[in-house]
Amino acid sequence: MARLVDGKPGVLNVGLAQFAEAVVAAGGAALQIDWAPPAAGDRAAAMALARLVGAPRVEEANRTAFAAFLAASPVLRGVCTVRELPGLDRRVLLHAGPPIEWVRMCGPMQGAIVGAILYEGWARDAEAARALAASGAIRFAPAHHHAAVGPMAGIISPSMPLWVIEDKVSGRRAYSNFNEGLGKALRFGAYGSDVLERLKWIGIVLAPAVGAALDALGGVELKPLMAQALTMGDEVHNRNAAASALLLRRLAGALARTTSSSQGLAEVLDFVAGNEHFFLNVSMAACKAMLDAAHGVPGSSLVTAMARNGVEFGIRVSGLGERWFTAPAASVDGLYFAGYSAADAARDLGDSAITETAGLGGFAMAAAPAIVKFVGGTPEDAIDNSLRMRQITLGESNVFQLPALDFRGTACGIDARRVVDTGIEPVINTGIAHREPGIGQIGAGLTRAPLACFAQAVLALDELGRA
Amino acid sequence: MARLVDGKPGVLNVGLAQFAEAVVAAGGAALQIDWAPPAAGDRAAAMALARLVGAPRVEEANRTAFAAFLAASPVLRGVCTVRELPGLDRRVLLHAGPPIEWVRMCGPMQGAIVGAILYEGWARDAEAARALAASGAIRFAPAHHHAAVGPMAGIISPSMPLWVIEDKVSGRRAYSNFNEGLGKALRFGAYGSDVLERLKWIGIVLAPAVGAALDALGGVELKPLMAQALTMGDEVHNRNAAASALLLRRLAGALARTTSSSQGLAEVLDFVAGNEHFFLNVSMAACKAMLDAAHGVPGSSLVTAMARNGVEFGIRVSGLGERWFTAPAASVDGLYFAGYSAADAARDLGDSAITETAGLGGFAMAAAPAIVKFVGGTPEDAIDNSLRMRQITLGESNVFQLPALDFRGTACGIDARRVVDTGIEPVINTGIAHREPGIGQIGAGLTRAPLACFAQAVLALDELGRA
Repeated sequence: MARLVDGKPGVLNVGLAQFAEAVVAAGGAALQIDWAPPAAGDRAAAMALARLVGAPRVEEANRTAFAAFLAASPVLRGVCTVRELPGLDRRVLLHAGPPIEWVRMCGPMQGAIVGAILYEGWARDAEAARALAASGAIRFAPAHHHAAVGPMAGIISPSMPLWVIEDKVSGRRAYSNFNEGLGKALRFGAYGSDVLERLKWIGIVLAPAVGAALDALGGVELKPLMAQALTMGDEVHNRNAAASALLLRRLAGALARTTSSSQGLAEVLDFVAGNEHFFLNVSMAACKAMLDAAHGVPGSSLVTAMARNGVEFGIRVSGLGERWFTAPAASVDGLYFAGYSAADAARDLGDSAITETAGLGGFAMAAAPAIVKFVGGTPEDAIDNSLRMRQITLGESNVFQLPALDFRGTACGIDARRVVDTGIEPVINTGIAHREPGIGQIGAGLTRAPLACFAQAVLALDELGRA
Repeated sequence: MARLVDGKPGVLNVGLAQFAEAVVAAGGAALQIDWAPPAAGDRAAAMALARLVGAPRVEEANRTAFAAFLAASPVLRGVCTVRELPGLDRRVLLHAGPPIEWVRMCGPMQGAIVGAILYEGWARDAEAARALAASGAIRFAPAHHHAAVGPMAGIISPSMPLWVIEDKVSGRRAYSNFNEGLGKALRFGAYGSDVLERLKWIGIVLAPAVGAALDALGGVELKPLMAQALTMGDEVHNRNAAASALLLRRLAGALARTTSSSQGLAEVLDFVAGNEHFFLNVSMAACKAMLDAAHGVPGSSLVTAMARNGVEFGIRVSGLGERWFTAPAASVDGLYFAGYSAADAARDLGDSAITETAGLGGFAMAAAPAIVKFVGGTPEDAIDNSLRMRQITLGESNVFQLPALDFRGTACGIDARRVVDTGIEPVINTGIAHREPGIGQIGAGLTRAPLACFAQAVLALDELGRA
């Protein structure tokens, strides 16, 4: 005790930094430790966590779920329409994120619904479409409830074409709509005649042509293509330049053999060549297929979906069935296109965070240093994000490698327990939509999955385990 | 003096490391400085260097030459044949590297010449072709002497199609042949019927189709495409996966519009899609066009070509006209395909080091971490190579950026003086050919441009300056 009073103190400080500052001001040495209590101080979640961390039942379930995730092998099999999906009635519209009613939807989602109604011919004009949407005559359902995913608003209507992705291991399928390209697009809530014309062209020309080419090819294996794209500067969420070019490369010859109209062929090749995000929707459905393979393992804390409807952020967990655990959707910290600012931005939106759920996107930013020109930060930040995500995942991908990290696999298999324990929220690369419908993308940036979703999931998992 | 004897010495040691080791063994502190005398101890070259370093005449000439290099803007303009090149007689064969006679040529180059003679129909069989080549009835000339470049053996015969690259600034053109793909290929000295059949198909189907598409497009700007490829993991010498996919993306729609035969179109698309090195030859001619823009500035020590004929490595320097400065070609340190070893390897071969001369290839390895799986080393080595090359160049590219180095430009504009002064030899990524003709590529790796070429150039520049 005498030594403590006589000598100069050397202090490790946890918590409020002011204590350390006082020591330093008095001539002592103090090191501030970056630490936060588990579950950000939420006592109930922390108690649940204490029971779940290291619990053999959870560990075993996670091993099973993670192995199933790693083993899944998505193949781009072909093209279908929503009508061919099981369990869907005639007047249903699928949307991104967890369930939400018309009145609570954000601007871009309402706009996209108006566009989808016009596209289907269910209403004469936007006003009538809006009235129909509000009338209750149309059922809205999360795309995730029907094995599908869609970027941004994610609106999918019955006659829209869908990519069919099949997991070779389970035979289970996942679906996504076609990417329309940048600028004014349905997924950002635009519903002008140009948007509807392009959607019709996608349905009549593009999708059948690509479908025939895929039939001729017998499908395209997606894991090798995505792994190659990671060595070519993509993280296959916000940067799909390489993956889109690689998919075009795979399809081009087959398209030439199977497309009868040379005008149609030229249009299709031009469209695919002109859209660096063409692969995004395929990437999303591939990730959905991998994660669905890991879903439904009792006791598992593996996160199998993260999705946003523009109002709420929701997650699903392997051992917790069809439940969503939600929190308010965050804003996105990013770079804005000229003329726009954070005041114009919609909140975090879309099913595309399924890529991060599978260890890609923000988790694989180290593969895509050039993305920082688009989402902000430095190439070093990109690497730091990939490294930090290792603290909340069950392992590393055996297929998706990060060249800049000496070919280590991407961190994947988000463990809800570890998110709560460390307070590290999953990082997400994302586009930013204008909050008004129809204006489109106004920027891109980084956001985080809210800790509260994971804390709820941990509580539910603990409750279920003790039931 | 007393302090030196009494105290413990702190020593910086230059030269033999043993002196430093003795100090350390005696309890002192010694730091070994990594230093070598300029010109590796060559007194004449060092004296010349002393006169050239900082000489206003040379500095001014280099500013002019480097500015011209940076300003050049190569466009992929179309397709022609060798016959359309000025100054070429009927029975000439172009080859890679500095001048060389038939008897001294390496195996792959002799094999490629046999193939070219058979392709042209100048001889009935390989034996007759060999006799014709040895007879003196055919003139051999470096491709570089006719504004052209070719990878590996680089053999170009009169009826072969060529890429036409035009510098928009000067209107000057550069040329390269078409890439045949991997495996057995003329550039590795293979001349079997499969090789000749493919060459014919390239001449009859591929080149006219691509030429028509380029006519329809009005050309393709190459600097933006190559810059984009650098953000997609290429260094556009040994890795052209992205650039080839990007070129296909640019050409696909136009090909569909201009190719009348749908069978031909499908073949062309399949061929381009199946060859990740398709862009290599375009990259080489683009670099040639940029460097030719900097050539011929009196007094300039800027290196405007590095090329190898498999026996000698040669360089040309802006202020030294058409002269070559040569040294024996080095072996390549690399990774071999299964079943091959260094004992099977030809020495460093081909005009493709024009990419390094322009600050790409080995100089831009930091853009292509995944290339180390092909040429050896680690992603860190790749970054180190890009950093080290800054010590021997006049500046950085204003277009070609390295994302991993925080978007700094690639080191470019090799200054012969700095190479001699530092002893740092330009690093080159390259393929490795089997030393026997016809076997093909057996590996890839790294090599260096021999210091002796640069020392000779420095002597010549000094002599010319004093004349």
